[in-house]
Amino acid sequence: MSQTLTIALSKGRILDDTLPLLKEAGIEPTEDLEKSRKLIFPTTDPNVRLLIVRATDVPTYVEHGAADLGVAGKDVLMEYGSQGLYEPLDLKIANCKLMTAGPVDAPEPAGRLKVATKFVNVARRYYAEQGRQVDVIKLYGSMELAPLVGLADKIIDVVDTGNTLKANGLEPQELIAHISSRLIVNKASMKMKHARIKSLIDLLAEAVERRS
Amino acid sequence: MSQTLTIALSKGRILDDTLPLLKEAGIEPTEDLEKSRKLIFPTTDPNVRLLIVRATDVPTYVEHGAADLGVAGKDVLMEYGSQGLYEPLDLKIANCKLMTAGPVDAPEPAGRLKVATKFVNVARRYYAEQGRQVDVIKLYGSMELAPLVGLADKIIDVVDTGNTLKANGLEPQELIAHISSRLIVNKASMKMKHARIKSLIDLLAEAVERRS
Ligand SMILES: O=P(O)(O)OC[C@H]1O[C@H](OP(=O)(O)OP(=O)(O)O)[C@H](O)[C@@H]1O
Ligand SMILES: O=P(O)(O)OC[C@H]1O[C@H](OP(=O)(O)OP(=O)(O)O)[C@H](O)[C@@H]1O
Repeated sequence: MSQTLTIALSKGRILDDTLPLLKEAGIEPTEDLEKSRKLIFPTTDPNVRLLIVRATDVPTYVEHGAADLGVAGKDVLMEYGSQGLYEPLDLKIANCKLMTAGPVDAPEPAGRLKVATKFVNVARRYYAEQGRQVDVIKLYGSMELAPLVGLADKIIDVVDTGNTLKANGLEPQELIAHISSRLIVNKASMKMKHARIKSLIDLLAEAVERRS
Repeated sequence: MSQTLTIALSKGRILDDTLPLLKEAGIEPTEDLEKSRKLIFPTTDPNVRLLIVRATDVPTYVEHGAADLGVAGKDVLMEYGSQGLYEPLDLKIANCKLMTAGPVDAPEPAGRLKVATKFVNVARRYYAEQGRQVDVIKLYGSMELAPLVGLADKIIDVVDTGNTLKANGLEPQELIAHISSRLIVNKASMKMKHARIKSLIDLLAEAVERRS
């Protein structure tokens, strides 16, 4: 009996960089994902379908078993908490850095530090480990605006080229983590569909290896 | 001394419907906001600037005083909790409904209900008031996908034309709240810049009145 697999991906860099790896594992979507408003896509493998969800929602779909596998940035996984998931493979794509950043040449604030970020769990852990008391302000987007209008002293965000920071008069400061995208797997699926998933992981691992 | 005002808005329907009201109050951006990647905009009133942020971030900017005023959907305010804000005016724009929705003709699930939504606080309150035990699953986008792939039995989302639900084989079920956008004001700004803000509220109230 052939087992169906559902793989959750998000649009943007993760999708662009994952599709070539999936192709090397014999899986190709049968239509253009970026152009479609659909959310569920068949592939050239009749037993594999792709779900397109928000980057932050990928771990949720995989942990609850609505997808067997997914591709998520380490930043998203650090924030989500990955106890409920397997994370068997670093795909070494969508590389960037999770960093603190603040206005260029700004002195450290005298009072309690205010940090705006969508990574509030990461932020609390990071400053707790340093024994620093901070106010963490949750934002959903455009973190780089926060220091410009006095909402926060610093932000925590992913930095790739650094252009977004620079365009807003900000500079990267402390490195919190090197980020890349990871293959994640639902725990029950890993048991129930072990052979199928194991062989897909192996094919993807070989594809990653060939690229490095 | 003239006092500067900062107003936080979000792109999309709220921006489209708020700009005509602000214009009637003598405030017009001096460039096209939808086309620009900037986040801070001057207006024809040298003492007023606009911030463009995510819809969910508007209450955060206003509560913390990074903006004096903002325009936010009642859905966002219900989720955020508005104790830290004044909400002096219903702008009667971007009208829609916050509803539960599920697959067309699906029977009520036998076990514990699973509800996927970005409005997790609203969802918990709504079902607690009914004395129903539910599992609430936080999503950041595309809620309509969740019932299609078995992540949840129902969703809670805003419904306007109902087309998004229909296109996904879902139907609106229970009405949670009628939604429109509200003017919100920072509490300290309301004291410190009272005359300026009061006169803007009055002008906007008249503009709303003229439209109804
Ligand atoms: O250092 P840079 O090359 O400028 O890249 C950094 C930008 O990329 C990320 O956003 P992303 O494009 O992933 O989208 P988002 O704003 O939706 O998070 C991040 O939030 C920055 O805005
Ligand atoms: O009943 P309809 O007319 O189809 O409108 C409903 C849609 O509008 C809202 O999304 P919105 O367009 O505000 O953007 P979002 O998906 O970013 O929330 C909502 O989440 C639905 O997707």
